[in-house]
Amino acid sequence: MPHTLVPTSDLVEHANVYGRDGTKLGTIERLMLNKVKGTVAYAVIKTGGLLASHHHYPVRWDALSFDPECQAFRVDLSLEDLRAGPSEFDEDDFDWGDRSRSYPHPHYWTV
Amino acid sequence: MPHTLVPTSDLVEHANVYGRDGTKLGTIERLMLNKVKGTVAYAVIKTGGLLASHHHYPVRWDALSFDPECQAFRVDLSLEDLRAGPSEFDEDDFDWGDRSRSYPHPHYWTV
Repeated sequence: MPHTLVPTSDLVEHANVYGRDGTKLGTIERLMLNKVKGTVAYAVIKTGGLLASHHHYPVRWDALSFDPECQAFRVDLSLEDLRAGPSEFDEDDFDWGDRSRSYPHPHYWTV
Repeated sequence: MPHTLVPTSDLVEHANVYGRDGTKLGTIERLMLNKVKGTVAYAVIKTGGLLASHHHYPVRWDALSFDPECQAFRVDLSLEDLRAGPSEFDEDDFDWGDRSRSYPHPHYWTV
């Protein structure tokens, strides 16, 4: 991804996301767009490797910053932070389920 | 697309775009993201029907507005306006070619 402007589809399943300590958290699985405002609301980060089970976590888009040197995104979160948030969602409704939990990074899925 | 928040992939090849006079211009073929700024720069509109040849035109994202009633996007452009702009581009570089032409809606592909 040498260009600043890329098709959103180029990021999905391709762009790596690195966490606070520089370890790879996962890849961007999808971008959620607020089609009325025209802004990207959040990215869904897919964690886990070939042999591990996958999990999906929403991360507020403006919390991700692009690192041109390694052509990847960085976020000031650890895998434990992600795991403390919502991870299961209804594919049809894009509903992240139990919102009554006290997430350390609340409500980023409703921006 | 009943929800305000949708995966970007749901719009691509699915969302209709209607022009100034209410006629369908085409569909959104892809969304180009400024990955550094985190904003959608422009949409590529694919025109033409099953039997017609397809053309691709960039339209500045903030020129498109979402119409919740018909679940489609509207833009204050005619098909002739689109045709007066760049339509051919290098798939590898996302370069819209001859930028020396005097487009009526200039430079929206470089936002």
